[in-house]
Amino acid sequence: MTKEVEVVFQPEGMHVRIESGQTILEAAKLAGVDLVSTCGGKGDCGKCRVIVTERKNIGPLTKIERQLLSVNEIDAGYRLACRTSVNSRIAARIPEESRTGKQRLQVEGIKTHAKLDPLIKKYFVKLPSPTLGDNKADVDRLLDLLKVKHHMKDLRVNLSVLQELPPMLRERERDATVVVWNDRVIIGVEPGATVQRVFGYAVDIGTTKLAGYLLDLTTGEVLAVESLINPQIPYGEDIIARVTHALKGPGKQKQLQQLVITALNQILKALLEKSGVRTEEVYEMTVVGNTVMHHLFLNICPKGLALSPYAPAVRTGLDINPKEVGMCMNPHGNIHVLPVVAGFVGADAIAVALATEVYKRSRLCLVLDIGTNTEILLGNKDGLMACSCASGPALEGAHIKHGMRASTGAIERVQIDSATLEVRYQTIDDVKPCGMCGSAIVDVTAEMLKAGIINVMGAINREIRSPRLRIENEPEFVIAFKKETSTGQDITVTQKDIREIQSAKAAIHTGALTLMKKRGVVEKNIDLVFIAGAFGSYIDPKNARLIGMYPEIGLEKVKVVGNAAGTGARMALVSEMARSQAEEISRRIRYVELATELDFQTEFCNSLSIPYADLSRYPETSEMLRELGRYPKKPPPMINTRKK
Amino acid sequence: MTKEVEVVFQPEGMHVRIESGQTILEAAKLAGVDLVSTCGGKGDCGKCRVIVTERKNIGPLTKIERQLLSVNEIDAGYRLACRTSVNSRIAARIPEESRTGKQRLQVEGIKTHAKLDPLIKKYFVKLPSPTLGDNKADVDRLLDLLKVKHHMKDLRVNLSVLQELPPMLRERERDATVVVWNDRVIIGVEPGATVQRVFGYAVDIGTTKLAGYLLDLTTGEVLAVESLINPQIPYGEDIIARVTHALKGPGKQKQLQQLVITALNQILKALLEKSGVRTEEVYEMTVVGNTVMHHLFLNICPKGLALSPYAPAVRTGLDINPKEVGMCMNPHGNIHVLPVVAGFVGADAIAVALATEVYKRSRLCLVLDIGTNTEILLGNKDGLMACSCASGPALEGAHIKHGMRASTGAIERVQIDSATLEVRYQTIDDVKPCGMCGSAIVDVTAEMLKAGIINVMGAINREIRSPRLRIENEPEFVIAFKKETSTGQDITVTQKDIREIQSAKAAIHTGALTLMKKRGVVEKNIDLVFIAGAFGSYIDPKNARLIGMYPEIGLEKVKVVGNAAGTGARMALVSEMARSQAEEISRRIRYVELATELDFQTEFCNSLSIPYADLSRYPETSEMLRELGRYPKKPPPMINTRKK
Repeated sequence: MTKEVEVVFQPEGMHVRIESGQTILEAAKLAGVDLVSTCGGKGDCGKCRVIVTERKNIGPLTKIERQLLSVNEIDAGYRLACRTSVNSRIAARIPEESRTGKQRLQVEGIKTHAKLDPLIKKYFVKLPSPTLGDNKADVDRLLDLLKVKHHMKDLRVNLSVLQELPPMLRERERDATVVVWNDRVIIGVEPGATVQRVFGYAVDIGTTKLAGYLLDLTTGEVLAVESLINPQIPYGEDIIARVTHALKGPGKQKQLQQLVITALNQILKALLEKSGVRTEEVYEMTVVGNTVMHHLFLNICPKGLALSPYAPAVRTGLDINPKEVGMCMNPHGNIHVLPVVAGFVGADAIAVALATEVYKRSRLCLVLDIGTNTEILLGNKDGLMACSCASGPALEGAHIKHGMRASTGAIERVQIDSATLEVRYQTIDDVKPCGMCGSAIVDVTAEMLKAGIINVMGAINREIRSPRLRIENEPEFVIAFKKETSTGQDITVTQKDIREIQSAKAAIHTGALTLMKKRGVVEKNIDLVFIAGAFGSYIDPKNARLIGMYPEIGLEKVKVVGNAAGTGARMALVSEMARSQAEEISRRIRYVELATELDFQTEFCNSLSIPYADLSRYPETSEMLRELGRYPKKPPPMINTRKK
Repeated sequence: MTKEVEVVFQPEGMHVRIESGQTILEAAKLAGVDLVSTCGGKGDCGKCRVIVTERKNIGPLTKIERQLLSVNEIDAGYRLACRTSVNSRIAARIPEESRTGKQRLQVEGIKTHAKLDPLIKKYFVKLPSPTLGDNKADVDRLLDLLKVKHHMKDLRVNLSVLQELPPMLRERERDATVVVWNDRVIIGVEPGATVQRVFGYAVDIGTTKLAGYLLDLTTGEVLAVESLINPQIPYGEDIIARVTHALKGPGKQKQLQQLVITALNQILKALLEKSGVRTEEVYEMTVVGNTVMHHLFLNICPKGLALSPYAPAVRTGLDINPKEVGMCMNPHGNIHVLPVVAGFVGADAIAVALATEVYKRSRLCLVLDIGTNTEILLGNKDGLMACSCASGPALEGAHIKHGMRASTGAIERVQIDSATLEVRYQTIDDVKPCGMCGSAIVDVTAEMLKAGIINVMGAINREIRSPRLRIENEPEFVIAFKKETSTGQDITVTQKDIREIQSAKAAIHTGALTLMKKRGVVEKNIDLVFIAGAFGSYIDPKNARLIGMYPEIGLEKVKVVGNAAGTGARMALVSEMARSQAEEISRRIRYVELATELDFQTEFCNSLSIPYADLSRYPETSEMLRELGRYPKKPPPMINTRKK
């Protein structure tokens, strides 16, 4: 028989009961407490730190905890929530650095270009009452009127309208507003003149964050913007982990769907409160996201996406009823889910193509939509290619010792003085730092290279004499000393952190190079680079290029475009034309599966160098390194894994 | 503060708690006890008799009870359930004659003529798995296969199919069966070869009874037939009473819908159990019924039907999702509700037209679909007219002192010896009689006329000397003495009963004459008479004509066709062509509203005579009456209400 035990989370004072032997992380999920768990409970990330003083009531320290926690921390009662089983009542304190916090998320995007042509249209009518000379059916009289006055024919009528029409005709005022979807179906009849009240909800379901926009469909104006952390994160930080969870057993896939639907409903509720719009006035919703987010939103098994040949269940755009997924909007409205491509290249990539208009430009464009998963597009009106890179959550602060998401207290900008190795940094909301977010990590890597703290292979120079450079188990460089921080701990960059960044940027770089090679172009042929995505918006494009996150293309050609996927979702929300363009992009785009590319390993290994093994492709960066005296005496070896 | 009191129904021993002051009828409804209430609790019909001995616990006798109950009955504790309030715990015994009982219902109909062409089609496929060379979306591969193998294109796909397809493709066998509706939508994918398993459910929602048929859509064969009393009856015996109830307040309309949906689900469940078919194998359902039943099935306000100009909310046929009304069949299947005409002429009349094929015959046809409401069609391929007559529930035994529905113990046939006035009768299931059903009442009226017990005005001849003729408050004629009956009471026909029958048959007669006049035809121009409906199937067409239920047309032209509405529903279930014919009939048929006809009152008054005021239109009947010496010395007066 299993015993139930109580866990109290502090400082909230949240109580929850679990079975004896379950972990603190399981208790935290049950309680809905804000606790980072970037690896989804596997014991990899070391983020889910909690402080428990009742040691006799919890399981013994595990090997992995001894590796990931310092002796001082262990003495202070730190444990990893995912490794710590509970035997009897405890109180667990969650330190600030273990919280996801209120995050700063990029949801602004670029201005939409779509012509205003929403699929929902409203028509004001004087409802025609039956007369002795005309005993046609109520709905037939209405259809006749719409034909004569608005030239609309062959309209279908929802059962709900048939239910609403007769009492309206006979008991209330005869002024009414007819709601028509896609010139095909009458989805509502409302009393009075409400033609100005038509709203839509566009969402971008990111692996890490959800962004929602409420739009006035009569003007195309964005009325409010809201975002939330994707609540699926505790079940896996990246999309592969999400797929693995979904396949774990019956109900898991549905559970992930319900988490995201609940959060999207929560965002919509906040948007409605902000803008004074009623739930029933939201008639349409558009959804973008990578293929895994897309499949999970629809409760479709994502297994095929993760296995060769990476086929989605469905590629084309879909129109579904809100009730089919449980969205709280007008129940007779429509949800349009944009088309996907293949593999992990999903509706978000299509939306980015829509927003950046690469599919109709003459100039050759490279588009990077940087996130936990990075999608890359290369092309123009003569053809588009796309691939997906597992850039991982390092750029969002995960798997980085003092990494954190871009929220209050995160260091976001870093400069290192090449001579003194003194560090200047800037935090979000100008408070004491508690960690570093992705943009700072990119800065740090670039600055450490320029200051000679790391070499082009990413190795920390152990010869440097500075109080900031410490070599204990592994070398680390102090960005902020504990006296400056809000956590009372030093904020450092470790050798392992640099390796994580190298791996992330190499994945993106490899994707870009592979597409360029397939298209037969080099850096100078590329006319425009779009950097999109929440993370992409905050990085310094110059530093990102310096560390070789993308090829060395003139900075004047680089445009940071924010959440372009969200922009694309908004375009599809207000424009029928944008939806058909999305279908065409999805049909025409060429999907490149990096894993099956023969040169993938070669390019990836070469891309691990900072900026790249072949420095001749980085003339500007080489010149700068030479001037700083950091150009390698022995250039990094070019690898070709295809050779035996 | 209201007190709760308990009512126990005997002999069932069913307990229920009501508020002090509520009636026994309200308690019976709450308990779901079988208790006739043909007027819906208005105190008109006198049918809801119950026996209560604890007199101090119930309200005092009302005036209406003193009128409708005999002194002996009052002494024995009889009360009307709808008039009797309860103050304290009582036991109420429901006598046999107050029960609706297990009814004999005509659900056989005529043989269907529709070509087998159901809208649901199944295709067996070997599901095409993704390969390295083909990473098209799962559903696209399936669509390609259906295009190549079965020449189907532009198919839409239900979200449910997208959800079912990927695991089937990757985890189970690849043999599958694709379910397509109307060559337009894939509504299901099933593992294995199931092409032979396609079933449909056809229902006829009558004001009084529900008939359901389970069909094999691959053969068109009827697998099982079931019927139930319409559970809306306690809320009004006829359609006007139903409409009145629906309009009584919020929730009443929905309540009537839920009653009928629950019963239709119950019938389907019984059909499935009988035939070994699973719920999910029922993909389509067709529904017919008069406009009030149609609107209530769809939860549409029926107010417009009962008020001039008698406009329905919707006329055309509808395809709706089972979930929209709560039907338990394949949730991705389709419910087709046949089109209606106007006023009370509904989908049942269209179905009768389909079944009798009047719309494509050269010969001129008169169709009577006799029920609580009688629909009449007149026409041929050159045009059809229709009207609806409020024949009322008298023909089903209501408002008749010893009337009952056609169930066990009902007298169904009666003969009276003209000389001795001795009565011979036949009961359903050959048991002791407990009342008379509609066919017997028609027989009695005809036989009483022939025997001279009533004259052509319907007046009972008080001069007759016979133990069977009694003149107390009003004259009545005994059909069965109490020693012969199972109720221990005489079964009699009263003067009031004859008046009820006159009124019912006059309504039908007036409808037929009005249509004939509009078409400019007389009796001899009519080539065929179809008598349809449950009641119509059991009456003696000769006696019905003798009492003037329909004009004097040669009996060789009269066909009794059973539940033709149900037959039409079955035709529409198996044939797309039948559905488009139904639409065309609905569009072309001319609706005649009797209430607005100038001659209506005149015709109705003249039709009250037996068979009709103008005996010259009944030469055969006149001849017979003359032979029997019953021809009136003074013919009944012809009335013309249009004269001042």
